[in-house]
Amino acid sequence: MTPKISESEKEKRRMHIIQSAGEVFKRKGYVNSTMQDIVDETEMSRGWVYLYFSSKDEIMKVILAENDKETEAQIKNLLTSGLSVWKGLCGLIDMMEQQLSNASDELPIVIYEYFISGWKEQERRSMLEEHYKKQQAYLVHYLQKGVEDGEFNPRVDLDVINKMITSYFEGVLLHTKAAGIGNVRVKEQLRLFKSILKEVLQVHDLEGES
Amino acid sequence: MTPKISESEKEKRRMHIIQSAGEVFKRKGYVNSTMQDIVDETEMSRGWVYLYFSSKDEIMKVILAENDKETEAQIKNLLTSGLSVWKGLCGLIDMMEQQLSNASDELPIVIYEYFISGWKEQERRSMLEEHYKKQQAYLVHYLQKGVEDGEFNPRVDLDVINKMITSYFEGVLLHTKAAGIGNVRVKEQLRLFKSILKEVLQVHDLEGES
Repeated sequence: MTPKISESEKEKRRMHIIQSAGEVFKRKGYVNSTMQDIVDETEMSRGWVYLYFSSKDEIMKVILAENDKETEAQIKNLLTSGLSVWKGLCGLIDMMEQQLSNASDELPIVIYEYFISGWKEQERRSMLEEHYKKQQAYLVHYLQKGVEDGEFNPRVDLDVINKMITSYFEGVLLHTKAAGIGNVRVKEQLRLFKSILKEVLQVHDLEGES
Repeated sequence: MTPKISESEKEKRRMHIIQSAGEVFKRKGYVNSTMQDIVDETEMSRGWVYLYFSSKDEIMKVILAENDKETEAQIKNLLTSGLSVWKGLCGLIDMMEQQLSNASDELPIVIYEYFISGWKEQERRSMLEEHYKKQQAYLVHYLQKGVEDGEFNPRVDLDVINKMITSYFEGVLLHTKAAGIGNVRVKEQLRLFKSILKEVLQVHDLEGES
């Protein structure tokens, strides 16, 4: 019944479904989206879509995995960029500020919604724990390089600093998406947070930046 | 049909429904709870419960208002306690640590779930913004007292410090409930955060605490 298609065509369709689902989730929220919404968005037939994915949950897991991969790639790029870790870290914070100013970039809040709307389900909790651990591992690995290069002399255990950074970013993101970037004064908050980090990591910038 | 009952009896029943709903939300999550679950929990008749509330959303709004009132009362108590603001603030952080260690206290995450599962709905967004502004106002009012009393000499705008504190607490709470208090190393994180706050507020503790 199904016509034969090439592997690359299959992959293209799969990606198209994932992207369409992302658009639907951003527009309607995860909880309120249905597979039918996703099918409509793809402009493919229901049968075709179900050949690839049997539920929105399944698609969401792929989106999450992609998101983890992007973070990993980002940190890998920074590690080989030749930038000092401090400059790289400041760049990450600036990027976050930009992302928060971009009202249309609502994937992060879709990811929260996915986790929090299922906080009572064991599978969702385990996934969130996994997601948290991965994010932690990428960032701590990066900060570690700063210590090895003699850039940082952290005032307390690097892992604790790392966890504090992650918690803070999470909160800023949530507040900004909820209460609006102006109400939360993100620009000023992040400037303050940078100065705090500089002290807590005891940054000795190898490139002489103040 | 309905027997006459006294005002105080009415209020008692209303509170009983609210408390029962809180238990259901904590056990099943907000999204997964139904009015029937709440009726079952109250052990009252369906008709009685619907005399007071027509939806779980309506009950949730009362829970939220109660939560705001509690925060307000807590800050009022601190303001008149005679404690230095710095000690009071440390007390709030310690209390937060205790609350996070208490796995059964899951009301905060129910509140998140309520807001985030409805982030696409205008009404829910406005409520969240309102909730955020109220929390901000209580805390900044408290910190202001520290400035007036000559305890604090904040390095940057107090409002920005206040927003940073709120964002950080939000993130810690979320991470802890998601990834577990041990994984997130809450105790160490909060100790570090206290030392940061002390520097950012430039605390001159009037009671000579170091």
